[in-house]
This record gives sequence, structure tokens and C-alpha cells, in this order.
Amino acid sequence: MSSAAVKVGICGLGTVGSGTFNVLQRNADLIRARAQSAVDVVHVGARRDHPDCDLEGVQVSRDIFAVAQDPEIDVLVELIGGTTVARELVELALRNGKHVVTANKALIAEFGNELFALAEANQVVIRYEAAVAGGIPIIKALREGLSGNRIEWLAGIINGTGNFILSEMRDKGRDFADVLAEAQALGYAEADPTFDVEGIDAAHKLVILASLAFGMPLRFSSVYTEGITRLTPQDVEYAEELGYRIKHLGVAKCNGAGVELRVHPTLIPEQRLLANVNGVKNAVLVEGDAVGPTLYYGAGAGAEPTASAVVADIVDLAREISVGQACRVPALGVASACLAEVPIVPMADVVTPWYLRMVAEDKPGVLSQIASIFSEQGISIEALIQKAPAEGETRVPLIVLTNSAAQGRMEKAVSAIESLESISSEIARIRVEVLDG
Amino acid sequence: MSSAAVKVGICGLGTVGSGTFNVLQRNADLIRARAQSAVDVVHVGARRDHPDCDLEGVQVSRDIFAVAQDPEIDVLVELIGGTTVARELVELALRNGKHVVTANKALIAEFGNELFALAEANQVVIRYEAAVAGGIPIIKALREGLSGNRIEWLAGIINGTGNFILSEMRDKGRDFADVLAEAQALGYAEADPTFDVEGIDAAHKLVILASLAFGMPLRFSSVYTEGITRLTPQDVEYAEELGYRIKHLGVAKCNGAGVELRVHPTLIPEQRLLANVNGVKNAVLVEGDAVGPTLYYGAGAGAEPTASAVVADIVDLAREISVGQACRVPALGVASACLAEVPIVPMADVVTPWYLRMVAEDKPGVLSQIASIFSEQGISIEALIQKAPAEGETRVPLIVLTNSAAQGRMEKAVSAIESLESISSEIARIRVEVLDG
Repeated sequence: MSSAAVKVGICGLGTVGSGTFNVLQRNADLIRARAQSAVDVVHVGARRDHPDCDLEGVQVSRDIFAVAQDPEIDVLVELIGGTTVARELVELALRNGKHVVTANKALIAEFGNELFALAEANQVVIRYEAAVAGGIPIIKALREGLSGNRIEWLAGIINGTGNFILSEMRDKGRDFADVLAEAQALGYAEADPTFDVEGIDAAHKLVILASLAFGMPLRFSSVYTEGITRLTPQDVEYAEELGYRIKHLGVAKCNGAGVELRVHPTLIPEQRLLANVNGVKNAVLVEGDAVGPTLYYGAGAGAEPTASAVVADIVDLAREISVGQACRVPALGVASACLAEVPIVPMADVVTPWYLRMVAEDKPGVLSQIASIFSEQGISIEALIQKAPAEGETRVPLIVLTNSAAQGRMEKAVSAIESLESISSEIARIRVEVLDG
Repeated sequence: MSSAAVKVGICGLGTVGSGTFNVLQRNADLIRARAQSAVDVVHVGARRDHPDCDLEGVQVSRDIFAVAQDPEIDVLVELIGGTTVARELVELALRNGKHVVTANKALIAEFGNELFALAEANQVVIRYEAAVAGGIPIIKALREGLSGNRIEWLAGIINGTGNFILSEMRDKGRDFADVLAEAQALGYAEADPTFDVEGIDAAHKLVILASLAFGMPLRFSSVYTEGITRLTPQDVEYAEELGYRIKHLGVAKCNGAGVELRVHPTLIPEQRLLANVNGVKNAVLVEGDAVGPTLYYGAGAGAEPTASAVVADIVDLAREISVGQACRVPALGVASACLAEVPIVPMADVVTPWYLRMVAEDKPGVLSQIASIFSEQGISIEALIQKAPAEGETRVPLIVLTNSAAQGRMEKAVSAIESLESISSEIARIRVEVLDG
């Protein structure tokens, strides 16, 4: 069963690149036994060497494009990130008949449709397990492990930085800005945290998961994205009192009208496993029609967890190359001719329960005014809690938990309530997901 | 990319067989798009038809061996269970050049080594995702998704019946026997519950997971197995007070001395995800050297969840057959020539913290006698809690939580304590697993 070595070129020798190089070296014997052929890194393209990597015996090029043009390479591993040079590099590798493994979520989410077509035209494949949820084999689970299921919905904590911030806000009652500063100091958050805290990173990952789940082309521009920057310690605390935790979720749901694609803060019942995923960890809950709910949990980032996913893709390719065929599984799980353009459900039509927080005058009649506005919009109230006023304060926080209501109706209700004289602030709104099943 | 249909024969039309047949029918279009070829059930072998299955247009044989001899079949799906007829059937199918998909944990755990060799000799494969943890794609995760990792340990709730009983005991303070009777009435437990509650079913699954994790032949006879029949509501309650939940775990650990293979009740810190897996659900925690801890959760049994795993194996095979080669992944994750006989660590040498419960006379000096016995065995005490005596009772329950200690030393300490005059009952002992990392 053994065959010639599979030859790998790695482009980018930063955190993930060095982790990948080192895992391939450290576990080389094991990987050879599993892949049924040796996996040799023969060429590294990087602007500089990495202090943790022993590159002896490996060709090193400062020009990464030299790796894509190396006739010896079977698999090019793209770990430079970004969507400009990385895209050119991947295109060149595909045109030169190399399989590509990448951890680049932005590249796949934004340019995957074109890149997969280019790969297919060149009879090679692109693998991207590391692009979503780090070391968790969630792409493989969706594309292979659950292949008998019609996927109904999925919901995931797919940004570790955001989850670290929310976990700290909850555990220690701290402010968003305060925790963000700590996360930056610890290296969990970038100097420019926008991608993480505004949900763009999660949107990249969600669109990949949704395309795999529902067999549709990547639709990054269609994802609704709402960050966690406006969450307050009060919301975290009130949610807790009501039996919920607040998590930043990516949610993709398929219903008769199309597919919902959304990233936003979400209240989850505290007993759900997802509600108990803390710190920088990631988890994805997937509901299939046959299997019911399944959950996948692990490290969503970091050098070696991400390398774990990159190496799994390389081993997969090596196993396929050694039996002569790597096009076994289509890039998005279904044959490209079967990819279907599914309509995206407009946010106004997305139905969830809601958590609302407002500040009201503490006087008779206010609650009944509010209740009648909800009633006019056909929204029923699950819980309405008036907190005690602070000393010397005549205004009180008012928390409302509603049953399921479309965002459109909720917006009408909210704007009617905001226009009441007795309501003195903008109403904070957070969706609720029950995640049962 | 499309090719001729892959032709499937299903043997056994009970719960899982009918579920598999129906999932293949219901999701046929989706499966065809994913497999890049049609998957057609052309032959069913079953003693009788199933009221939920429309068998029109499908050849039906009352003699299941006729399916294994049907020249049209590419894949035989064995869902009759047991290790006698099922074994003969699988052997015949392999000899006739059919790939085999099975949900039969006993067959794989006890006869897998021989069957995998027979498959390899006939250039076909056996897939068995459904044999462990129902619909959770844990075999694929270990064999493919984590293939870059040296697996350090795994721990799983891999018997739904046992977990249902423990969840009920905890939630409602009920007795083991009482909950078992309910589980039998609900159909969660068999009339003869031995396989489930004595841990034999979990041992079958654990040995499969361990062989995949550590690249070793299946060693079913080497698993230490301890059931849940002796757990009392008191133990469940005291564990809770100490911040733990009791779960029936299968644990496989690799250390310098070899591999630990054990199934037993276990105290787990209550904040761990595994501690929060309730009812009939299953979950497996896997620690890899690169990825760190990962967890896989879902339905461990039932018609359609199990069918989900069976169909995933069929789709996998169809994808491979359509590109001409199904021997991509070795049966136990590493090439058969690389399987290594790893020593099994004797239980006397297995080191864990312990929970002990005893009944002691409530008089001075008892605690110090007990403490000095632990000290003599080099076992340090983490907590020692004397409960209040019941009214009119001079004896009190005494709970001890120790630090890590080998079972051999713990047995010496326990037998010395049991011989004290002031100790009036057998000491209940339960292992603790911290599951950190």
C-alpha cells in the first residue's frame, strides 16, 4: 500500500506555518503510517526563517511564488493570509497542477467560488479545514461525517477572541473595552480588533459552514453581521438572571423561504453545551434531519491546533494521492454542478425570541403602554422584569423577553416604545436562540 | 465527475436497518449530489419486511446470505447484530469482493483484527462509523480529522442507557434499580440490561476508539470493565456537593508504560462539558498533542442517528468507488503493517484521584487513624468530609477525596481502613478524572 513520498511546500512561516512545519516533523513516523506514504516538506517560502523551525535540508525561498513553481511539489500549503498575494499564489499553484491546503478563511469565503472552479479545471483540489474553528474537524464532519443528512441549521461560537471577551465579561462583571484591552495584551486580540469584535471573522467562517451545510455557493456579502461592542455588563448580568448566557454566534438556518445567514450576540439557555463553551474555545452545533443535534468543540486558533487541521488536510491528500485520485470529495460537499443558488432570508423576516433592555420612568401605566404596543405587533411577552431603581433615581431598567417575532415587527414595536415619553433611552435588543432539538 | 450508481445491499431490517433504508430513500437526491453518483439499495435481506419501509422495486431475500452472493452488489450493509451469523455474513461478503458497512460494535471489537485482514486480502474495506457513539462522526475524526496528532488520551460517555440512568439518578435522587426499570419501560434499556449497565457495550466501543487513537490491534479482552450497578443516590449527591458529577466513562490513555483501557463510573468536575452531557446522549473527549482537547457530542443510538453514520460510510465508499479506489484509509487508521502491540497498563498501576465513601463510628481518633493509613501509603488527602449522623445514629458517613494514587496503593489503604473497628461497612470507591488540558 505504500508509495512514493508526497512532497509539500509551505508558504508562510508565521504562527501557523511554523506550527505546521513542526507538527509534520515531530509526528513524521505516525503520519507516514497513517498516510501510507511519507509526507516530506521539501520547500518553504517565507520572507524570513522562524526561530522554532529547523529548516536544514529544506529548500527555502524568499519568493513564495518559487514554491508554486517548484515542479517537485505535490501540495502547496498557503499560510500567508490575506486575499491579495495569497490569492495570486493559490491561483498560480492550481494552474501548475498543485493541490492546495489553506487556513485562509477570508480567501475561501470571498474568493472560494472562483478558486474551486479553477481547481476543478486543473484537476486538483483545495482543502481548507483550518479555515473554520481551528483544530476542530468541522469541515470534514459536514462534508463527510454527516453526508447522509439534510442539514437544518447550525450555530457556532467561531471566534475565540470574542468568546474570550464575553466569558471574561460574565465571569468578572467587566466592561467590554476593559476586557478587549486585556485580550490585546495577552495576544488573543489583534491591535485592530475589528475583524474579531465586529463579527467579520465569524462571518467568513459562517459563510463557509453554510455553503457546506446547504450545498450552495459561498455568499459572503449576504451575511448579516452584528458585533459585540455594544454589549454591556448589565445585559450579561440580566441574561444570567433569566437563565441565559450571551454568546456571539454564527447562525445558518434553512427553512422554506431560504437560508438565514447571521452573526450576532445571542442569548442561549444556560444549560446548553454551547452556553458552557468558554474562553478562546470554539464549538459548532449542527442539526441534521437524521442525526439530530451534534456538537464539535475544541481550540479555534493557535499555532498547533490550526496546524492539526492543516496536517489533517495534507494527510487526506496524501492518502488520496497514494491511491491515484484526490477529487473524491467536492470542494463544497456537493458536485459543483449541483450547487444551488438558495435565496437568503431578509433580516426583517428572521424570527427569533428577543431580549430587550430599556430605561423607563417608574410610574403607573408605563408597563401597560409597552405591553399594548407589543400586542399590536402580535408579539407575546415571555417575561417582563422591572428592576429596582438606583437610589435617588426615578427611572428603572426594564427587561423584556419576548416569544418568537420577526425582526420587522420587533423594529416597529421598538420604535413605537422608544417614542413613548416615559422611555428615556435607546432600547438594547439581543436575539435569543433556544437551540433545542 | 459522475459515474454509475453504487449498488447497496442491506442485511437486517430492524430499527437501524429500516432507518438506513429510509434515510437513503428520503435524501436520495442530496446523497447523489454529495457522492457524485447515485446510491441505490437494490437488495434487502431480512426475515420479514418492515412496516415503515416501502420495498417496491427492491429485491428482497429471506436468506441474508443471498445478498452477500448477489453479483450486482458493491456494498453490503450488515445490520443484523451479534457475532455469529453476522460474522459469517461479513466474511462471505468480503470473500465475494464486497465492501462492508456495519454498525456492529461487538463484531468489530471482538473479531475486527481478523475481518480487517480478510478485507485487505480481498482488496475491499470494512467501514464501521455507526459502531461507536451512533451518529457522532468520531471514527472519522480520529482516523482522518486528527491524523496529524499523537493522541494522548480519550474519555467518552459511550453508552446512552447508562448515561440516562445516571442523569435520572442525579436529577431526581432516584435509585439505580428504579431508574433502570423505567429505562426498560421506555425502551432505552434491553430486557437483559447487562451489556449496558455492566459496561460491556462501552468496552466494545472503547477498544475500537483506543485502537484508532493509538494505532494498535483491537484488544477487547484487555479492557477493565466496571458497571454502574453499585452506585447509590448518596454517592451521586456527595459527588455533587464536592463539585463533581458521576459519569460512566470509557477511558483510554497512553503513557510511557503503555495504554490504559478502562470503563468505570467516574467523578468529573461539574464545569466540564462531559459532565453536562445528559440523558441518552453520547460524547467523546479526545486530547491530541497538537490540537489539545476536542469534544464530539450527539445521539449515541436510535434508528436515524445510527443510520446517519451508516449512510456516511456508504457515501464515503461511493465517493471512493466512483474514483476507482476505496482503500484510501486503513481500517484502524494506520497501515496494517504499522499496527503496534502496545502493553496494557495493569489496573494496579493506573493512577487517578479517588472518591471514597465509608461509614465510621462518630468518635475521637477515627479521622486520625484513617489519615495515617493514607499517609503510610503515600496518598495525600484533598478533602475529608464527615456528614452529620442521622437521628439516633452513632455512625456517620465519611467522604474522602484523595489526590492521584495508583489503584494498588489505594487497595492497600482501603483494606487497612476496612479492618479498623470503627469502620462498619465496605468502602465505596469511585475514580476521579480531572479531564483538564
